[in-house]
Amino acid sequence: MKQILVIGAGRSSSSMIKYFLDNAVQENWFVRVGDMDLKLAQEKVGNSSHGEAFAFNALNPEERWKELQNKNLVVSMLPAHLHIEVVKDCIKLGIDIITPSYISNEMKELHQAAEEANVLVMNEIGVDPGMDHMSAKKILDDIEQMGGEMDSFESFTGGLIAPESDNNPWNYKFTWNPRNVVLAGQGGAAKFIQNGQYKYIPYNKLFRRTEIIEIDGYGKFEGYANRDSLKYRSVYNLEGIPTIYRGTLRRVGFCRAWNMFVQLGATDDSYVIEGSENMTHRDFINSFLAYDAHNSVELKLRYYLNIEQDDYIWDKLEWLGIFSNEKVGLKNATPAQILQKILEGKWSLEKDDKDMIVMWHKFTYKLNNVMKEIHSSMVYIGKDQTYTAMSDTVGLPVAICAKLILNGTIQTKGVQIPILKEIYEPVMKELEDFGMKYVEKEVR
Amino acid sequence: MKQILVIGAGRSSSSMIKYFLDNAVQENWFVRVGDMDLKLAQEKVGNSSHGEAFAFNALNPEERWKELQNKNLVVSMLPAHLHIEVVKDCIKLGIDIITPSYISNEMKELHQAAEEANVLVMNEIGVDPGMDHMSAKKILDDIEQMGGEMDSFESFTGGLIAPESDNNPWNYKFTWNPRNVVLAGQGGAAKFIQNGQYKYIPYNKLFRRTEIIEIDGYGKFEGYANRDSLKYRSVYNLEGIPTIYRGTLRRVGFCRAWNMFVQLGATDDSYVIEGSENMTHRDFINSFLAYDAHNSVELKLRYYLNIEQDDYIWDKLEWLGIFSNEKVGLKNATPAQILQKILEGKWSLEKDDKDMIVMWHKFTYKLNNVMKEIHSSMVYIGKDQTYTAMSDTVGLPVAICAKLILNGTIQTKGVQIPILKEIYEPVMKELEDFGMKYVEKEVR
Repeated sequence: MKQILVIGAGRSSSSMIKYFLDNAVQENWFVRVGDMDLKLAQEKVGNSSHGEAFAFNALNPEERWKELQNKNLVVSMLPAHLHIEVVKDCIKLGIDIITPSYISNEMKELHQAAEEANVLVMNEIGVDPGMDHMSAKKILDDIEQMGGEMDSFESFTGGLIAPESDNNPWNYKFTWNPRNVVLAGQGGAAKFIQNGQYKYIPYNKLFRRTEIIEIDGYGKFEGYANRDSLKYRSVYNLEGIPTIYRGTLRRVGFCRAWNMFVQLGATDDSYVIEGSENMTHRDFINSFLAYDAHNSVELKLRYYLNIEQDDYIWDKLEWLGIFSNEKVGLKNATPAQILQKILEGKWSLEKDDKDMIVMWHKFTYKLNNVMKEIHSSMVYIGKDQTYTAMSDTVGLPVAICAKLILNGTIQTKGVQIPILKEIYEPVMKELEDFGMKYVEKEVR
Repeated sequence: MKQILVIGAGRSSSSMIKYFLDNAVQENWFVRVGDMDLKLAQEKVGNSSHGEAFAFNALNPEERWKELQNKNLVVSMLPAHLHIEVVKDCIKLGIDIITPSYISNEMKELHQAAEEANVLVMNEIGVDPGMDHMSAKKILDDIEQMGGEMDSFESFTGGLIAPESDNNPWNYKFTWNPRNVVLAGQGGAAKFIQNGQYKYIPYNKLFRRTEIIEIDGYGKFEGYANRDSLKYRSVYNLEGIPTIYRGTLRRVGFCRAWNMFVQLGATDDSYVIEGSENMTHRDFINSFLAYDAHNSVELKLRYYLNIEQDDYIWDKLEWLGIFSNEKVGLKNATPAQILQKILEGKWSLEKDDKDMIVMWHKFTYKLNNVMKEIHSSMVYIGKDQTYTAMSDTVGLPVAICAKLILNGTIQTKGVQIPILKEIYEPVMKELEDFGMKYVEKEVR
């Protein structure tokens, strides 16, 4: 019987653990699920006889070392910066390990050690990063094989609310970490290259330089640039490509309205607002507006940010309750923390809400002196609030990859991301069975 | 004979060293001027028989300790973060020391040690900080003594070009460190309090939230908020004041035009522009604008930033040569470094140009139930490019303070800034002899 160790039983582990337990008999697996929070692990394993939940502190070297003995495969769902010690132990013990997280430089440096120990350390195999790599690389490899020359690559992903649960003016709810949504785009200019020209977008313009895309059956979306598109040139072996752009998707209109908070300074996480504890939503907004004894906060905001009273932005802002006299109720909070609190009151999922993952790639290339264009898109809607689209699209690629390693289909060793055909082809094939199917179309 | 040691003979030391040498006979002083760059020190001392220039590395503990022996007073003109070791030695040796720099927390912690050693460590006694403290505190103390209750305090300072040398559309030239001008306002929201309401201005709005002031005989200026006005409440003993605001002065129209660079992202110092070495000014601007095969950089910029073609902003931008095909010629440069290079080509002082320091305070207070308002302003124009307004206003308060310490007028000990009457009164009195006179007027 093959022993699988899952470290971390948070929200993103649900679908993966279910897959492991569902396939345990057929594949002859036994699944140990460890988490600091025993209850969380127990919830995920349920009363399955093919798995066992246990309290586990993966940061304790002895506890970890003991638990890793006799495992055939490890999946680490820890926060990204905590994988490294687990990986080092796995290399020593000759155990393959998977994480969905971005590969760190420290991780990359373990490549040779992993290869020498005949160990696979698979990273970036969730949804973004993960399915984006696999679905893009599949088409890029096809184009290369045909002898095509890449002219541009654009790629957008978004974690959104499903159309059937989309019932607010922002067409948005928090389907994942709210803090990341509030801070999105901060920490440096967005960088990309277009027709051979390097382009830079500062945070204060990020949400005004959007691109609109349309997906058959799902309507229009808008994308804003991710922080660094340039690094994907080396990741995808596209060193000389004239255009590469990666972005995040929202429903059309979101970014223009969100930009109001950016312009106000309400997404700033670098200082604490004085007296935040006793502040109302209205006070919070007023703290970014000039003092004026006569005009209302509403009027001052409109005037400051040039919002016409019949602009849809205005409805969005009002609907959030930012002008209300409700207390913020957070002590020593930054603007970003206060804004998050206000948004959580409005953008939280209701009991039956479903989330949605949307991915869209555009490839243009020259083949036999003719310019060609391919669009590839995938829309996936969650089942409920446990098996969300986010949980499925992060967890199932990990789980399928685990199966393919354990059954010998994937033989590659070393520190990897899923850009090799040997990996992405079988993973994507099985993902289709779960409804994660990419629709490709050639555009004239 | 009293021995004065001056550490650092850079631009800001000129006027101070001249004062020391001019007064050496009468006061019975001998002035040692040490700098890493011997030539710089020699230039400042000239052929005076009352001073001596020498090569000096103040960071070498033994060299420093040796040099400090038998000194009666030390002036440290080192970069702010380098004073601390000199000050520690001075405390051990019982020598009074002066620096024009902002007091650091590390410096503050030496207060008791300095008092116990009967040593005065005077900080923040240049122009800003320095003359701003002294001129403000003088009026604040007067108001307090009369029994007035402070309602608001606003204070602005600017280092500008003198009217007789003001011959460009920005009404601005680099009269001090250009890098600080390009980076001004970055690194956190501006914070102040107005009528009891805390107010925060993010960088992207800083140059749009200006206040216009007028000084008799010198016309209009505009001020943008300094980063932290709130800390001056404790410095000036104004804890409960409803309004406190400190800012930086420019000529009217500067800020609105400068904001264009902020909006573009051209003042960003956090990343390196690809291929900056071979870039032209025009390429630099274009790297912040969307790709467009048909429209010119000029048109794209106008459209992006909403600049009408007859807007004065447009003349300012064009005059800078930002659309020219001149090479930037900087390798691995950040946007801020490139922008600085472009500006230095236009905003540098010509041979006979003179600079100007402008300071303006506004005090409102309640006295016997009547609201009163006082404005206090000082405009000072430099003599030439050695004895600039900046050099005079930074160096003369330091030098005068030195004299007052050496002749026993200032008796205070410990780590100080010039907010005590014992200090500011005699310093300001002598500054008037140099033409640094504050014009006070009561406003109805």
